[in-house]
Amino acid sequence: MRCSVARSLEVVGSWWSLLIIRDCVLGIRRFGDFHKSLGIPKNTLADRLAKLVEHDVLRKVPAQDGSKYAEYELTEKGEDLLPILIALTQWGDKWEEHELGRTYRFLDQASGEEVSRVWPRRRNGEQIPLDQIAAVLPKGVRG
Amino acid sequence: MRCSVARSLEVVGSWWSLLIIRDCVLGIRRFGDFHKSLGIPKNTLADRLAKLVEHDVLRKVPAQDGSKYAEYELTEKGEDLLPILIALTQWGDKWEEHELGRTYRFLDQASGEEVSRVWPRRRNGEQIPLDQIAAVLPKGVRG
Repeated sequence: MRCSVARSLEVVGSWWSLLIIRDCVLGIRRFGDFHKSLGIPKNTLADRLAKLVEHDVLRKVPAQDGSKYAEYELTEKGEDLLPILIALTQWGDKWEEHELGRTYRFLDQASGEEVSRVWPRRRNGEQIPLDQIAAVLPKGVRG
Repeated sequence: MRCSVARSLEVVGSWWSLLIIRDCVLGIRRFGDFHKSLGIPKNTLADRLAKLVEHDVLRKVPAQDGSKYAEYELTEKGEDLLPILIALTQWGDKWEEHELGRTYRFLDQASGEEVSRVWPRRRNGEQIPLDQIAAVLPKGVRG
């Protein structure tokens, strides 16, 4: 498919893939720890990890402590998903609030402040109201 | 699950759900047109639409032209997914480029300029480098 949303979703569109990426951001690196965090069947987890490695979102690296376990880390392409992960978190915080409140927050380490809402902006940094955004399709192209 | 990413993905995490939302943004409103655009089985499409209505992402409304066909439109909660859709499009444009180039673009109607990269920012509008963002989990909380 030519549509970029469709192509992105082919890579990260499964529920578990984005939760794996969330876990990486939270510092998880090993198969056993992903398994403990996500509670999914080991073969499903192995499939998802392999797919993310194949698409160059994760890379497999030797254990940092020299042990025999492989570890996974985000590639540059994988790190570049962080804005999407933050935007999804913020949307969930706003619209699907949990009775116990929020879990993790994303902080700007330079200021210690929480990252403000990930939002489309003008070049000068101003937020664009959603009703002023148009999706434009070139002539003769189908998404 | 308490994690906001997980809760967001429960609502919009299926591949088809986000493509339905993309179609809404591109102006599609009727079952038959979603079906033509997405090419998925009618029962799958009906399920996804019903789930999005149930989660208050879409609402079902009478046809604008007075015909008997129902139409679907984004609620405020659904429109609020646009930043995520734009971020996914931009990620795909960057990392999963199609040989024929990009399809649709998102324009700021006020300036006619393309929406710049949806990115975490400081309050003053400055982009935050990803390696300066920390995900912080409160003590005793599991994602």
